[in-house]
Order: sequence, then C-alpha cells, then structure tokens
Amino acid sequence: MNLITSRDNPQVKAWRRLAQDTTAYRKAGQFWLEGDHLCRAAIDRGVKPLQIVLSASCFEAQGPQWAGLTDALFVLPDPLFASLSGLESPARMGFVVAWSAQGQLLSDASTVVLDRLQDAGNVGAILRCASAFGYRQVLAVKGTAALWSPKVLRAGMGAHFGLHLIESVSEEDVAALQVPVLTTSSHQGPFLHELLQRQELTPKCAWVFGHEGQGVSDSLMALAHQKVRIAQPGGEESLNVATAAAICLHASATAAI
Amino acid sequence: MNLITSRDNPQVKAWRRLAQDTTAYRKAGQFWLEGDHLCRAAIDRGVKPLQIVLSASCFEAQGPQWAGLTDALFVLPDPLFASLSGLESPARMGFVVAWSAQGQLLSDASTVVLDRLQDAGNVGAILRCASAFGYRQVLAVKGTAALWSPKVLRAGMGAHFGLHLIESVSEEDVAALQVPVLTTSSHQGPFLHELLQRQELTPKCAWVFGHEGQGVSDSLMALAHQKVRIAQPGGEESLNVATAAAICLHASATAAI
Repeated sequence: MNLITSRDNPQVKAWRRLAQDTTAYRKAGQFWLEGDHLCRAAIDRGVKPLQIVLSASCFEAQGPQWAGLTDALFVLPDPLFASLSGLESPARMGFVVAWSAQGQLLSDASTVVLDRLQDAGNVGAILRCASAFGYRQVLAVKGTAALWSPKVLRAGMGAHFGLHLIESVSEEDVAALQVPVLTTSSHQGPFLHELLQRQELTPKCAWVFGHEGQGVSDSLMALAHQKVRIAQPGGEESLNVATAAAICLHASATAAI
Repeated sequence: MNLITSRDNPQVKAWRRLAQDTTAYRKAGQFWLEGDHLCRAAIDRGVKPLQIVLSASCFEAQGPQWAGLTDALFVLPDPLFASLSGLESPARMGFVVAWSAQGQLLSDASTVVLDRLQDAGNVGAILRCASAFGYRQVLAVKGTAALWSPKVLRAGMGAHFGLHLIESVSEEDVAALQVPVLTTSSHQGPFLHELLQRQELTPKCAWVFGHEGQGVSDSLMALAHQKVRIAQPGGEESLNVATAAAICLHASATAAI
C-alpha cells in the first residue's frame, strides 16, 4: 500500500487529468473508473485494474478486500481524493484501467450508432439500454461525446464492459455494416409500432440515433434501409434521444424472442 | 416595470424561497417557472403568469414582448437574478404562476401513478413521456418528489401544463380507478412484448411505476390487474425507472392506434 498526501505528486496529477479531462484516456491509454458500484461492476465483468486508488476512509473500511487485487494500491486522505474527481458527488474509490484504441468493427453484429450525441448522460443511458437489450456493438461517429469519459462511464453503470465499443467511426464504416440500418426521424417513415405489428423488425440490425438538436445527419439518413418514427398521440414537440432509443432498442430486441 | 436591486427585498426573498425550496409552492399557492423554453411552453398552453421576473440583460433583449402580458413585470440585475435560482445553470427569466391544491381525481382517465419516486429528473422525464404519449392524468403517491418543484418542472419541459396532476394520492385512490392497473416488476408477470403480441394492452389504463430502489410497494402491487416485466436479453441488473416507463407508456399508447 502506498500513501500519498501531496496534491503535487505527479501520480495525483495524472489521476486528476484522467478524472477531469474527458478525452485524456486516448493519449494516456488508461481510463479512470470512479465509485464503488462501477468498480465492482468492472470486476464482475473480468476487468483487472492497473491501479486502485482509495480514500483513507474507504481503505479503513474495505482495504483488505482490494489489497489482494493489485500491488498498485494507493491511499489518499479523503479531501485529496475528493479533489481528483470531476463528478458532482465524488466517490471514495477509483480504478485506473488500461484502454486501447479501437478494436475491429464487427460488420455482422447487432449495433447502435451514436451520431454526434453531445450529452454524456444520454450517451451513458443509451449504452446501458444497448447492453440490457442484448446489442453487441456501439459505434460512436466522430463528434460524439467521448465514450470513456468519467461522466459517460458513470451514466453507463457498467454497460461499457459488456459491449464492443468503437469511437471516431466514419459514414463509410456505417455503410459497410452487413445488417439493416434503421434511423429515427421526427417526420419520416412508418411508425415503430406499425413495424412491430407487421413483424418487420429484427434484433439483428443497426439503430442510428442522432444529435440532440439536429437529429441524424443527412448522409447517415441516406444509408437507412428503414426510417422510423415514434408515434406521439399527445402531440409533444420531441422526445429526449435516450428515451427514443430505449423504446426502439426494446422494440427490435424483443421482436423475435 | 419595477426595478429591484436589493437582495433583502421581501419580494426577492419570496421568489428565492419558491425557486429553491422544493415544496414551498404548497404553502405559497404559487410556483416558480424558470427559463425561456419553459416559460414559453407555459404561455403556449394558456398559462397566465402572476408575475414576470427578468434579469436586466433579458429585459434589454426581450422586455417589450413580455411587458404586454402583465403589469407585474420585475427586473433584477443579472447577479441578483442568478442568486434566486436553485438550478445548476440559472436562467435569465422566471414566471410566478398560481398553484392550487388538487383537482378531482379522474377515475376513468388514462393514468400514470408514481409510487414514491425520489429523483426529480426521473419524475420530470416520466411526465414528459406521459404527455407525449397522450396519457391524461398523473397521480403522485405520498412520498414522491414534489411535482411542481423547480427541478421536476425543468425536467418536465412543459408537460405539466397538459396533464391533470394530483399529489399525495393514497392507495385507496388508486384502488378506486375504473381503468385496469398495470404494475412493473423485475421478476413477476408476463413480458411487455408478449402482452403486445397477444393484443392485451390498451391505451386506457393506469401504469404504476415504483421507487428507484424498492420498486412498487406490495400494497399497490396487490391492486394490479396485470403485473408486467420488461425483457432484458442482455441480462443487465435493472433499467432506470424512467427508461422502463418510456417503454411501457409507448407500448400501451400505441396498442390500439
């Protein structure tokens, strides 16, 4: 166990960068996972942390159960730990986990495409749904919020560890998918529930969800095998994109069960 | 137009209480609506504000269009306006709107029941879905986050003004509904998509969504005509309650369209 008490310790600075800079993981090749729930979810999915960082109070309570996992166990006074975090309510423990850029795109997998989504909460919520409903791959088009940023990790609640995730995807990548592409639109195409009733949905497909303000880009819209609308009998202006995604992902995941 | 510059002005104190105390509207008989989008949504739905409060910069840009709506137009220096707000990113305008406790419960309306939901964001998101999918009434069981609190209003994005909302509802009230009661459960009942396939859903029903940690209470569960599960082929531990609600509310709203 290593005790660190200085704010200026180079290791502390590196953790702070990972915890607060949303894209630091790409350069560092490591990402920061914060909070008891999330760290345990990672362990359950077979993740092996490079470093474990605990606040002193957390070490006191849980030290022995973490010490066995790694020699790289660091303990910080609680205020110093809190100063690392970029989250609204800082946790008392964090993992540093190895990150490597980009696996191979799976052309035949059930897929969710995120087209320049901006909000970390929306991205995390959609990852969570994708995982819950059994989708295998999530592609983030260039311009989407960084998938391994602390806020997206937090909102994803562990979904990251069960999904095949690829960032900075291009339109050509989406075009190369061997599964039917479905895009959501506020004004084009048949309604989702009509497709369900006509049994025209299948779990093996790629759903594209678009930018919070602009929706799906024209060029991705042009790749769609099917444009889909969600009926809103109450006449509201628009659904939140994570809400729309939950409804679509559930619909096609359960279409053939 | 009235210019107010003192933090200690009694009117400023009253606004601050409405804006920051989640249940102050019940005693005051008035609620606080903050932000351009929300205030305009209220106007579009026929709401007449008792008072309009603008920051100086907002008054400079938009003063004339609001002055016609009421004589009770107040202008505050921007920092003073910002000090009122309980929101993370304070807006530049607010309405004070008359609130009256409890209308009559509509026993025959399509209904959403919130059973002790704690999170203002979840409650607002569900109101937004209820409105989008054409449900008429939302009942909040005692213990649910205050419906007209600034955070729920914000997350509802105007849904409040199209719904029949009743707070502090009892189990007897739910039992007295003349529409079928459906409860969500993580482990009981048929799957939602099976009910859809068997055409056993109807838009006229009452959906009950439960507490984020504990789910629907046993006594409300006992009132259910139908318990419903959402399939999760990916095997995640649980869906966020607002996500589950979106899927359920869409499913029965479109069941008979």
